[in-house]
Amino acid sequence: MKAEILTIGDELLRGEIVDSNKSFLSDRLLTVDAEVRWHVSMRDDPADMTEAFRRAAERSDVVLVSGGLGPTRDDLTISVLAETFGRKLVCDEETLQNLRAFFARFGREMAANNAKQAWFPEGAEILPNPVGTAPGCMLREADTAFFCMPGVPRELHKMMDEQVLPRLDRLRGDDQVVRATLLRTFGMGESNLDEELADVASEAGVSLGFRTAFPDNYVRPLARAADSSEATARLRRVCDAIRAKLGPMVYGQGEADSMESVVGRLLDEAGKSIAVAESCTGGLLAQRITGVPGASAYFRGGVVAYANEAKVGQLGVPQELLDEHGAVSEPVALAMASGVRERFGADFGVSTTGIAGPTGGSEEKPVGTVFIGVATAEGAEARDFFFPFERERHRMVTAQAGLDWVRRLILGAEPVAPRWARGRS
Amino acid sequence: MKAEILTIGDELLRGEIVDSNKSFLSDRLLTVDAEVRWHVSMRDDPADMTEAFRRAAERSDVVLVSGGLGPTRDDLTISVLAETFGRKLVCDEETLQNLRAFFARFGREMAANNAKQAWFPEGAEILPNPVGTAPGCMLREADTAFFCMPGVPRELHKMMDEQVLPRLDRLRGDDQVVRATLLRTFGMGESNLDEELADVASEAGVSLGFRTAFPDNYVRPLARAADSSEATARLRRVCDAIRAKLGPMVYGQGEADSMESVVGRLLDEAGKSIAVAESCTGGLLAQRITGVPGASAYFRGGVVAYANEAKVGQLGVPQELLDEHGAVSEPVALAMASGVRERFGADFGVSTTGIAGPTGGSEEKPVGTVFIGVATAEGAEARDFFFPFERERHRMVTAQAGLDWVRRLILGAEPVAPRWARGRS
Repeated sequence: MKAEILTIGDELLRGEIVDSNKSFLSDRLLTVDAEVRWHVSMRDDPADMTEAFRRAAERSDVVLVSGGLGPTRDDLTISVLAETFGRKLVCDEETLQNLRAFFARFGREMAANNAKQAWFPEGAEILPNPVGTAPGCMLREADTAFFCMPGVPRELHKMMDEQVLPRLDRLRGDDQVVRATLLRTFGMGESNLDEELADVASEAGVSLGFRTAFPDNYVRPLARAADSSEATARLRRVCDAIRAKLGPMVYGQGEADSMESVVGRLLDEAGKSIAVAESCTGGLLAQRITGVPGASAYFRGGVVAYANEAKVGQLGVPQELLDEHGAVSEPVALAMASGVRERFGADFGVSTTGIAGPTGGSEEKPVGTVFIGVATAEGAEARDFFFPFERERHRMVTAQAGLDWVRRLILGAEPVAPRWARGRS
Repeated sequence: MKAEILTIGDELLRGEIVDSNKSFLSDRLLTVDAEVRWHVSMRDDPADMTEAFRRAAERSDVVLVSGGLGPTRDDLTISVLAETFGRKLVCDEETLQNLRAFFARFGREMAANNAKQAWFPEGAEILPNPVGTAPGCMLREADTAFFCMPGVPRELHKMMDEQVLPRLDRLRGDDQVVRATLLRTFGMGESNLDEELADVASEAGVSLGFRTAFPDNYVRPLARAADSSEATARLRRVCDAIRAKLGPMVYGQGEADSMESVVGRLLDEAGKSIAVAESCTGGLLAQRITGVPGASAYFRGGVVAYANEAKVGQLGVPQELLDEHGAVSEPVALAMASGVRERFGADFGVSTTGIAGPTGGSEEKPVGTVFIGVATAEGAEARDFFFPFERERHRMVTAQAGLDWVRRLILGAEPVAPRWARGRS
């Protein structure tokens, strides 16, 4: 199944926004085993749109179109599509009533131009949009299926998952159903993952894809079968096999399962709390933890102890430790983790102190060196890591490693081996 | 000048990465007044690449190509481009020597496949790449100019700015030179900006573009003239006029001039230091400040006081204030700002306490309410704001407003009026 993605809108061509719809749609098309060959973006221009629709119909089996479904004069997708393939526009009464009801709910009368959103090319199948006013549609032209969706990401995502993907499942010529998911791993490089899982995908109808999303690596298992229950069962078997092989290296599943949300869930379930003492991560750890709604249930707070005086005054790190070992050292990481745990009355205290660069390194402690400490009621431990990445990535991987350590402690697993990232960038 | 952007690489079509090169290139093309009509991405596939090159030559004056310049078998841009337009490949001796010298510097011998990067279509002009191994090239085909650049963003950015843009200036048919820049504003909506600046762009050869980059709004002035010194002078005049009109609303100029780097520079120049006490921003303020290399010169540290106990224990907020006014209140914001300033020995103390949502609001203090406090040697002040945005954006705009307040204090300007964002989302 050859696929093509068309995104429409003047703003895309002006570089005002990074067009993330294309990568979302591409990723989803993988789950139905479609081969995405083209991404094309064009202005709200009838001649350009006509050219793109024609060319797509010639070379692709599936065409996903996003944007241009709104009520304004610039929104031309439906009318140009109809015109390109010689279809009349017809009004869909049900959509029109839904639109009227939508505005009535907010006590407003529907503007005349909104009625435009109820018109579709003759023969099109309407795709409901439960989270916005513009419905989408599917139009078959010879051997090609066009799916028109809104450009608003939230509406597009829902329509793609609930309306388009099931139809693509049915359109697939071989009558096979495809099921896929995403397993999120941290602590192993992509090529090692590939090697490690070489014999996992040996079952017929199963394949594995890999994807790097720094500092994580994702595995995307994909299962094909004659019906949906067999495909689902197959996918479950391959997921189980991957988890058996990788153990706690797999930290989450699915798009939304970030490390901080997984750690938050584990803390919440265990009734435990956390506090953080950050030097090199500079607030990133706290910011990620508090980015999860409901974090106040388990997050006590944190200290960003950038200056040495703050490490002494706010975390109780003894001045002698700083003088003797330097701020980037195991004893200081230990004292920071214990200090923040105690002062905030938390079950877990996590600390980071390292050299994110670009300057500040030495022969003994080069840029990239970092110590992470974790303190619990049972005691404290600190480990040294070496993450050979530029400043921003160094902070990202350090924060991830700190969160991962807490996750592994709660699960009763060993923390990742120190220096895992050395030479694996 | 009709322009088209082609990006090449299997990984783009698999949705593994969001293709930010396209928005970068589009944005840059605006500065030479080119009209970007098409963005096309395709796999590393000779037939697809040939089709795209042919079509681009028919419909566009300028074609920017990124990706496929590496040394591996997948890197086909140069050979397919030559083949498509019937050119021989010729070896550029100077590039070959540069490549050998590059590897010699790292004590390595050049691999055979790297030599491939020294071959170009006959008649192409070579574009040096000072930060990578793959040079780019410009090829004229009839009335169309193709510019091939690497896909690595850092290399692409440098080549576009230093090699391609000056050539585009020369290629422009009307012999006019275009100069443009970006003025970054915070605190005013896009439509208000547009209104406010209506009479600024009245000079001939001057135009203004607007662009939203939440929570900021950018103004892009563009000046055209017969020669570069007149275009530069014109651009300076329009920038001066905008700054005269908007005053301290303009906080920075250019791509890299973030609010935190501007505030950092001002603090550094004034020899002043800062510390932050964060509740609703949860570490974002500290993380942004410490994201700027060299922040340790002026950043003392911060406390993320999510729980009330942390506000009392770590910042010295009196328990009575919390009991009487609640954590989200003016007196608590004041006490947090003063407390963090004192405890960290900083010149400026900044605090945030608010309701980022999705839950936690009340009739009196709905989701979106936030108090920001700033303490200096002269005393402390707190103001209430209402930012009607979802959690993540609420945190972003709160952090920005806190930084902006410090900036305005250093400049001797008034802080932005409270509640500016009400009803302006």
